Amino acid sequence: MTAAAGPDREAGGLEQPARRDTRLDASIDRYAARTHQLTASAIRALFSVANRPEVVSLAGGMPNIADLPLNVVGEALHTLVLTRGTQAMQYGAGQGEPMLREQICEVMRLEGIVAHPDDVTVTVGSQQGLDLITRIFCDPGDVVIAEAPSYVGALGVFRAYQCEVVHVQLDDDGNGYGGLSPDALREALTALRSQGRRVKFIYTIPNFQNPAGVTQTLQRRRELLAVAEEFDVLVVEDNPYGLLGFDAEPLPAMRALDGERVLYLGSFSKTFAPGFRVGWVLAPHAVKEKLVLAQESAVLCPPVFSQYAVAAYLSAHDWKGQIKAFAELYTERRDAMLAGLTAHLPAGTTWTRPGGGFFVWVTVPDGIDTQAMLPRAVTARVAYVPGTAFYADGFGSRHMRLSYCYPTPERIIEGTRRLGEVLAHELSMATLFGTHTQPGGRALDPGPNANLS
Amino acid sequence: MTAAAGPDREAGGLEQPARRDTRLDASIDRYAARTHQLTASAIRALFSVANRPEVVSLAGGMPNIADLPLNVVGEALHTLVLTRGTQAMQYGAGQGEPMLREQICEVMRLEGIVAHPDDVTVTVGSQQGLDLITRIFCDPGDVVIAEAPSYVGALGVFRAYQCEVVHVQLDDDGNGYGGLSPDALREALTALRSQGRRVKFIYTIPNFQNPAGVTQTLQRRRELLAVAEEFDVLVVEDNPYGLLGFDAEPLPAMRALDGERVLYLGSFSKTFAPGFRVGWVLAPHAVKEKLVLAQESAVLCPPVFSQYAVAAYLSAHDWKGQIKAFAELYTERRDAMLAGLTAHLPAGTTWTRPGGGFFVWVTVPDGIDTQAMLPRAVTARVAYVPGTAFYADGFGSRHMRLSYCYPTPERIIEGTRRLGEVLAHELSMATLFGTHTQPGGRALDPGPNANLS
Repeated sequence: MTAAAGPDREAGGLEQPARRDTRLDASIDRYAARTHQLTASAIRALFSVANRPEVVSLAGGMPNIADLPLNVVGEALHTLVLTRGTQAMQYGAGQGEPMLREQICEVMRLEGIVAHPDDVTVTVGSQQGLDLITRIFCDPGDVVIAEAPSYVGALGVFRAYQCEVVHVQLDDDGNGYGGLSPDALREALTALRSQGRRVKFIYTIPNFQNPAGVTQTLQRRRELLAVAEEFDVLVVEDNPYGLLGFDAEPLPAMRALDGERVLYLGSFSKTFAPGFRVGWVLAPHAVKEKLVLAQESAVLCPPVFSQYAVAAYLSAHDWKGQIKAFAELYTERRDAMLAGLTAHLPAGTTWTRPGGGFFVWVTVPDGIDTQAMLPRAVTARVAYVPGTAFYADGFGSRHMRLSYCYPTPERIIEGTRRLGEVLAHELSMATLFGTHTQPGGRALDPGPNANLS
Repeated sequence: MTAAAGPDREAGGLEQPARRDTRLDASIDRYAARTHQLTASAIRALFSVANRPEVVSLAGGMPNIADLPLNVVGEALHTLVLTRGTQAMQYGAGQGEPMLREQICEVMRLEGIVAHPDDVTVTVGSQQGLDLITRIFCDPGDVVIAEAPSYVGALGVFRAYQCEVVHVQLDDDGNGYGGLSPDALREALTALRSQGRRVKFIYTIPNFQNPAGVTQTLQRRRELLAVAEEFDVLVVEDNPYGLLGFDAEPLPAMRALDGERVLYLGSFSKTFAPGFRVGWVLAPHAVKEKLVLAQESAVLCPPVFSQYAVAAYLSAHDWKGQIKAFAELYTERRDAMLAGLTAHLPAGTTWTRPGGGFFVWVTVPDGIDTQAMLPRAVTARVAYVPGTAFYADGFGSRHMRLSYCYPTPERIIEGTRRLGEVLAHELSMATLFGTHTQPGGRALDPGPNANLS
């Protein structure tokens, strides 16, 4: 079963129940300081249960690749091995294959980016791009700014390099637009500057944000870049979902607006398939040089066969048409999700309305703790990711991330029905035991993103 | 051209001339301290020249995969995509696919290792295994012990994590056996202990060492493990070439002798093909848990398709027979290399006699600096890797690594002929200008491995 881990490592679950280590660790005193930041999530074990077929999992972030043209891919790879096998199976360049880097520039052009293949570094998924960027920029104690909430896998990288994450709140206009707030960003940067803190970069997901589902308008992208310029801070733009918009043409990437300040992370995981682990970083020339050296040290070269495979797919298939087909599939599921939430979730619960991507961010009435509720939800055969996974600082207990990318529309509706029942029961308990403030009252734990949705 | 980089990043060359950065680096003040350890080798630019077809390159470490059964691989991948494509192209487990981990245990059994698949972590080549091990164990300033000389890619990883490498000399019995000296190891560990230094592990390549080509006897493996036990230090056993022995059956791996103290690194790069980037770490359970967390943070999961591809190859093909065929091919080339060296190298030059693997380590008469000589060698259309690449401390200028894995026997002989001419000329210059001490005299720069060969 490969459906085990997902793009959200704390959320994707494990294929087998996490084996609890009862043996002594002879190396306990040998680990590096950074290793103490690596802790298995408390919700991992639960997700092994959540992966059972009877549970509707609204937790994972796995793309739906069932509709890929397997015969096209199979034949392309067969031909690849016969005609260029000895190159595709040999060591390659640390920066990645030139041919693929040219195709990557073509893909990025769809979001307004004009780039040279020499400024692209291929990575083992964009997760590794984030790892390498953090590796070359961040000393222990350096500050990284991230949205509140932010991608769980990014928070894991920042923690692994002993960075301090400062969250800056997102907002939401109720129609899928919003995201990192320029005013809140300026406020955070001002405070950090006055404390003499060293901010290395702002990490942001402008399109269909993970987990909040919101998208920055073009105007907001410009405002955010102006703030970054004002404080002379780099921006790391993570864009796995940009081409998976449902309702509108892609907006220009932040990188399209500023080629010197923005490091751009791209990926084929959602537009083709994640199993090849092909992502990339587009960075200014001097930074790219460091990334390539770091890449060579990390893995010598990214998987050559994967790169040839992606290149062959892009050449052999109408990949733009395939992305459109993916987007249509996800549109139907997003619609099912929103309809299910409207039909089944109790009053006082709110959610975002994503215009693309995989995720809806739900805010539950105060008095309910989504992490505490999770075991009961799984017992009721529905799973989600508690909001706390998306914060470095313990906030988020009044939120949950729901994903609509993998289950069918029918399963999604059924999942929201089960979730509604669990929430209603939870709410009645909270009211009974007095932990629930009536609507309009003050939230117990609003978190830094209290104004979200 | 994918034959660009090789397993030795400083040695493998680049596919294009390294572009010298004349633009200002706007991020120069932003990099982490570790990034200042990442410097492009001075010999990189030269190797772009060395990759020209008219040059006989005895520098690279690329395996010869031309004889792989491309039709078998092509058909296996075609079938794989059609029958299990949606699993092979999806996200997978951070630890790697269970099926492949079972097959890896079978491979390791050939060197006496009895292991459970649950203790194996799949990595992006064994280079990433080394990166993850160093990541979880080493704080800046920690000591790692490595052979003198040692694998250039390992030294790069240790440098990237700001470790201090302490070299311990190798010896050589003239028949391909030798390696890390237990007495020298004990001496180094005693000195480090008295200085209060923290030694995290001993990094060693017991079989057909890169670059020296020597192999530890079983007796020596036991002695080294006893010293490691005495000082309570871990051993990292890197074994990419173990199954590529020419003259004898594989010796038991160090891991086969001690399952708790040894972390074992394996790879399919030399026994199958490097382009899939599939390696692994076998580690005690508690260490494995940390490795998996580090792996998830680094890349989410190792390339799933690559793992399925390797598994399919192992199932579809007589892979043990293929390894034998590889070994026969390399035997012929090793013989050509040794014959060429005997025929063409000037008196006073010595070399090791590897019983397997890819490399011969050459010691030139004193007064000759192999790094200074390299441009003249490349002009004479032969390339090698100067010994200094294999030391963290600037030693090695009287050595060079020659590899016989990639060129044909005829080209190897021709390469040694050209090298002999360059050396003879160099030697006459050194004698003329008085930098050369007569044989029997004291070497100017013997380095810590003066007694090698």
